[in-house]
Amino acid sequence: MMKLYGHWRSQAAMRVRIALALKGTAHEEVSIDILGGGQFDPAYLALNPEAVVPTLDDGAGPPLVQSLAILEWLEEMHPMPPLLPPEARGRARVRALALICAADAHPLVVPSARARLAAQFGADEAAIVAWSMHWMTRGLQAVEGHLARDAVAGGWCHGDAPTIADICLYSLYAGYEQRGGRLDGMPNLARVVALCEADPRFAAAHPLRQPGAPRPG
Amino acid sequence: MMKLYGHWRSQAAMRVRIALALKGTAHEEVSIDILGGGQFDPAYLALNPEAVVPTLDDGAGPPLVQSLAILEWLEEMHPMPPLLPPEARGRARVRALALICAADAHPLVVPSARARLAAQFGADEAAIVAWSMHWMTRGLQAVEGHLARDAVAGGWCHGDAPTIADICLYSLYAGYEQRGGRLDGMPNLARVVALCEADPRFAAAHPLRQPGAPRPG
Repeated sequence: MMKLYGHWRSQAAMRVRIALALKGTAHEEVSIDILGGGQFDPAYLALNPEAVVPTLDDGAGPPLVQSLAILEWLEEMHPMPPLLPPEARGRARVRALALICAADAHPLVVPSARARLAAQFGADEAAIVAWSMHWMTRGLQAVEGHLARDAVAGGWCHGDAPTIADICLYSLYAGYEQRGGRLDGMPNLARVVALCEADPRFAAAHPLRQPGAPRPG
Repeated sequence: MMKLYGHWRSQAAMRVRIALALKGTAHEEVSIDILGGGQFDPAYLALNPEAVVPTLDDGAGPPLVQSLAILEWLEEMHPMPPLLPPEARGRARVRALALICAADAHPLVVPSARARLAAQFGADEAAIVAWSMHWMTRGLQAVEGHLARDAVAGGWCHGDAPTIADICLYSLYAGYEQRGGRLDGMPNLARVVALCEADPRFAAAHPLRQPGAPRPG
């Protein structure tokens, strides 16, 4: 069985978790304590020299790293149901929306970035939350701008079935929502997020539903 | 002819410039003044709602955005010469190396991130350079870690021909080098960068060889 090394709060691990559920691929998840430095353990560094999550180990070769590369690999190994549209221009659009979330917004708010703000600039928790909300809001607004400009039939980001764009958008939204963010003024995102929340394959991957997450109440 | 909206210093535009050269695809480049706010001009926002470079307009549909999505699109539309290896696991490795550079390191050092450090934390130029070098060094060391662990025959990141991994690595290195970075202790990267520098399709895409770049003193 495939082994996913992740962490309950990681947006990047969440992406892989959703994709595995959409593909119907069984896996077990191993939690790496990324807030406590577990990613620097030599055993984990041997799997992931960058010291980040996620890592996906299928036992058939070097472990797979980088969530978007893992999603593309899953798409190639398990083509059904497709997570990319059939035509090249549609795939370019979906990949671009995914990258706005996963490459332009999320890297600014990962634990190592937050830690560096504290270490280099003495940023306190409130300043770090403000920084994080700035980048997540900016990424979400950019996706909203694309969805508003290029209307595509169907409620998801690109048509009537989820793609890697929805996976990355919902994962970014999860981080935004945890810090109190709302989708006011972003009606297209609100529509997509509602579809994600209603889909058990997305909902079950939510950070607050993973082992180790704080319990409500 | 395809039109590439870029900027001399942009690592992301540089990636597309190299890929177009490797594919032998003619294009003209339009410079967007990203240091002076040109990306917020309404005419450019209509092309790129995220207000970033690059944008590639082929005149046959909505403009293409996000450098890695553009590289995948170019690979699909112009398969030769290939910029991804033929087997799924090799493609996953190449995409992961590309993402370490383009998604984990570069977004921390883009103009909007540097401007935010100044605005929110009062960071001066020296502090911003230190921040930028921290993230670029970390990204380059992560790629070095992968190349050192998984030896692949051939001098490039993945075999004996360039891939999107080399494109993203050389673009990240260009930013690192401009700020005085050296590849001491990273012998695998030094080998790949030497191949890039010796290849006119890479070398001609270098920031300092674009219109608008500062002339050597």
